[in-house]
Amino acid sequence: MSKTLTTRQEDYSQWYNDIVLKGGLADYSPVKGCMVIKPHGYALWEHMRDELDRQFKATGHQNAYFPLFIPKSFLSKEAAHVEGFAKECAVVTHYRLKNDPNGGGVIVDPDAKLEEELIVRPTSETIIWNTYKDWIQSYRDLPLLINQWANVVRWEMRTRLFLRTTEFLWQEGHTAHATKQEAIDETTKMLDVYAAFAEDYMALPVIKGVKTANERFAGAEDTYCIEAMMQDGKALQAGTSHFLGQNFAKAFDVQFRDKENKQDYVWATSWGVSTRLIGALVMAHSDDEGLVLPPKLAPLQVVIVPIYNKDAATTAKIDGIAADLMATLRKQNVRVKYDNDDNTRPGWKFAEYELKGVPVRIVLGARDIENNLVEVARRDTKEKTSIQLDTLADHTMHLLTDIQSNMFNKALKFREDNMHTVDTWEEFIKTLDEKSGFISAHWDGTSETEDKIKELSKATIRCIPLNNALEEGKCILTGNPSTQRVIFARAY
Amino acid sequence: MSKTLTTRQEDYSQWYNDIVLKGGLADYSPVKGCMVIKPHGYALWEHMRDELDRQFKATGHQNAYFPLFIPKSFLSKEAAHVEGFAKECAVVTHYRLKNDPNGGGVIVDPDAKLEEELIVRPTSETIIWNTYKDWIQSYRDLPLLINQWANVVRWEMRTRLFLRTTEFLWQEGHTAHATKQEAIDETTKMLDVYAAFAEDYMALPVIKGVKTANERFAGAEDTYCIEAMMQDGKALQAGTSHFLGQNFAKAFDVQFRDKENKQDYVWATSWGVSTRLIGALVMAHSDDEGLVLPPKLAPLQVVIVPIYNKDAATTAKIDGIAADLMATLRKQNVRVKYDNDDNTRPGWKFAEYELKGVPVRIVLGARDIENNLVEVARRDTKEKTSIQLDTLADHTMHLLTDIQSNMFNKALKFREDNMHTVDTWEEFIKTLDEKSGFISAHWDGTSETEDKIKELSKATIRCIPLNNALEEGKCILTGNPSTQRVIFARAY
Repeated sequence: MSKTLTTRQEDYSQWYNDIVLKGGLADYSPVKGCMVIKPHGYALWEHMRDELDRQFKATGHQNAYFPLFIPKSFLSKEAAHVEGFAKECAVVTHYRLKNDPNGGGVIVDPDAKLEEELIVRPTSETIIWNTYKDWIQSYRDLPLLINQWANVVRWEMRTRLFLRTTEFLWQEGHTAHATKQEAIDETTKMLDVYAAFAEDYMALPVIKGVKTANERFAGAEDTYCIEAMMQDGKALQAGTSHFLGQNFAKAFDVQFRDKENKQDYVWATSWGVSTRLIGALVMAHSDDEGLVLPPKLAPLQVVIVPIYNKDAATTAKIDGIAADLMATLRKQNVRVKYDNDDNTRPGWKFAEYELKGVPVRIVLGARDIENNLVEVARRDTKEKTSIQLDTLADHTMHLLTDIQSNMFNKALKFREDNMHTVDTWEEFIKTLDEKSGFISAHWDGTSETEDKIKELSKATIRCIPLNNALEEGKCILTGNPSTQRVIFARAY
Repeated sequence: MSKTLTTRQEDYSQWYNDIVLKGGLADYSPVKGCMVIKPHGYALWEHMRDELDRQFKATGHQNAYFPLFIPKSFLSKEAAHVEGFAKECAVVTHYRLKNDPNGGGVIVDPDAKLEEELIVRPTSETIIWNTYKDWIQSYRDLPLLINQWANVVRWEMRTRLFLRTTEFLWQEGHTAHATKQEAIDETTKMLDVYAAFAEDYMALPVIKGVKTANERFAGAEDTYCIEAMMQDGKALQAGTSHFLGQNFAKAFDVQFRDKENKQDYVWATSWGVSTRLIGALVMAHSDDEGLVLPPKLAPLQVVIVPIYNKDAATTAKIDGIAADLMATLRKQNVRVKYDNDDNTRPGWKFAEYELKGVPVRIVLGARDIENNLVEVARRDTKEKTSIQLDTLADHTMHLLTDIQSNMFNKALKFREDNMHTVDTWEEFIKTLDEKSGFISAHWDGTSETEDKIKELSKATIRCIPLNNALEEGKCILTGNPSTQRVIFARAY
């Protein structure tokens, strides 16, 4: 397979697929809509997961694990929830195969039909709240702060690697609280954790906001989200945090005794991010040569490539410098590799590590080394610098920090350059078609208008930004009065 | 729910269930045979997983993730494999629910039937080798050393928390090699990793061996295993490593070009351990008061409990000592907690931490502190010692090491005391019934005899120990000649 990627200019969508496949992040699978996450992609996910997990634990959450299967009847217990999830789920109906007596190979055994069908979890509110009923009796059992790392399945008709797959990996937090305010505080606290993670680790600026009723999670009273801008100007929802009110507590009859010995239903939240974040990372930062990964998440942060001459003493000297440098960097927890594999040439290696998005490449060339010089290349800007050997380790550490912040600043500038404020329908359509990006505009607050705008423009309301300034205005479509602007965009 | 456990003497099986449920490791779920892994149980699993993952990576393996679903036809491609796994699998036949037009709630939509049914993976050889076909062309692509952490489903009729559940968590390594010898070496290397992990981390002595043909993994040429003895003398298989020969490569047509440019089928291994290990840990070490956890895996290693008097200065002094001790221990990566919760009394806390298996409990009592003394209790032997305050941190570190090795030695002695060598059928049955434990005996090497022994005694051949001494003898059942002893036991 050729390593050459389709360019973003040529075909953004094909560029994305190329980079995911050729960059070693994922592969298609024989199961419709499911993907194989390859080692490079999985290593990226591990770094994301480990950091998020650390932050969840630092905010008082514990991990647990609930069953993959949900009895069909559970889904129906929350009216909005079943509407949202019953239409796209994998249903287990039998528990055995057998040999076809007519010689047709292995068939489903009709005698092994389940009494009640099981749904492969699309999300776990129902099975978890059914369990919480046994775990919560008194205010002393609250808050209950639990997270689960798991696979979930939603039977999507149109899939895209990482962005929308039938099966995906995610975490889902499910918390239970004694008061409404405490649950709302938890919802926004976890939104803040997601936003900080996106910005500090993924180098991805996000807008925090709340979804309109149309875009709310099925069963939530409020859905908070973080929205990021991709390089084609489209929006990508990078994480959601839901205030569930008492909906699931009522559906599963989860009540508690408060300090005054009164019974009340428990207040709930749920929140999640998924392997979709890998898609966001690719779309936000990568270029026509391959992946560009933020140092804090890159599986490999620094690669050292030797260019030997035929002199054994020089080879030994280069290997020695590499060993010293690796030891120094590893002490500072840098993920570094020395690639002195004889079977591939330096040029091939350069292209390969560029494709894989390794942030810093250090070349130890026989000629440079004689002058105590080393070539250091940064992946984000592709700048190459000649560095004095004795400052190499410090320079590398500095570069890793600089790349991380440069990637964020570049993405932020891109978002600011593509954030448009419009006041009329004509301007709105023209901006969407000619400039793309996010559009701040007035909307009359009704679901009908939102549906109509989506139908006409393919743009949706991404969110009502938190701490939005109030501003009198007129809806771009209906001209009806509006009190604040919302963010519209075409989205993934 | 009462905290009192059934004793091992009264009912070993009920004791085990009590300890899993009341010790906060797991809970039953509404889905037949599936369990909820509670935070304490999941934290234990995280420590096991993290250490195993570290060892897999140190031996050159990378993680990846393959689809949950396997097309039905894939299972049939390896003849032994389908026989082994088709009889107990969850089958997805539909991808949508809908509202019953006759008002019967939500029903399976008959129009959403899959063309080919999907099996929820019971193990992933088939989907992985189907993928390897695309990844392997040349000897340069080998060895391919991949591991996956995942959930799997086997439709078990009789389930036990952790030991045998319909869904369980595990890791499955799947490697591909250019030569038979390299694959065999990988199989035994990973068996060694498992054995070292069981002994060094779980404090669980294991016997490494190879399974007889009857007990082999469906599709393997050889199955290696580690077998551990539980406190009731029964055996528990704690991990397996399979040499798969070229079976799956042939089934999925995975060939490679070797250095001489010849085509050959790839050689394979697979190996796995699961959440079953948590069951082994409980059954091997715990007692009638609750869990006894090895320090290296215990989610909480040290708990500090204050006993205040009414004097504020003393309270401040105790809190200060606790803070200092925690800081010192945490610097040495000890997982420590100060439980100064006012709502529960010291006696209740002692019982709770005993039940949860915390290895070391430190009591800072107002009266003792005046004399610079502290009470330190170890969970394994229940010894309490009065320790001078200035040696407390050192003593605690020493104790953690000592508990780890003491638990191993105790389990080893128990196994040695319950390892019996017998030469006749009468002795064999008498030993099984009266003493339980492992029995080293001669067997004529045939599957028929093995089946017959199982039928008559409920004991199976756990393994043929590696590096077994050759010894002429006669089969305990048939009297036919035998060249070595094998290990029999009743097993979980």
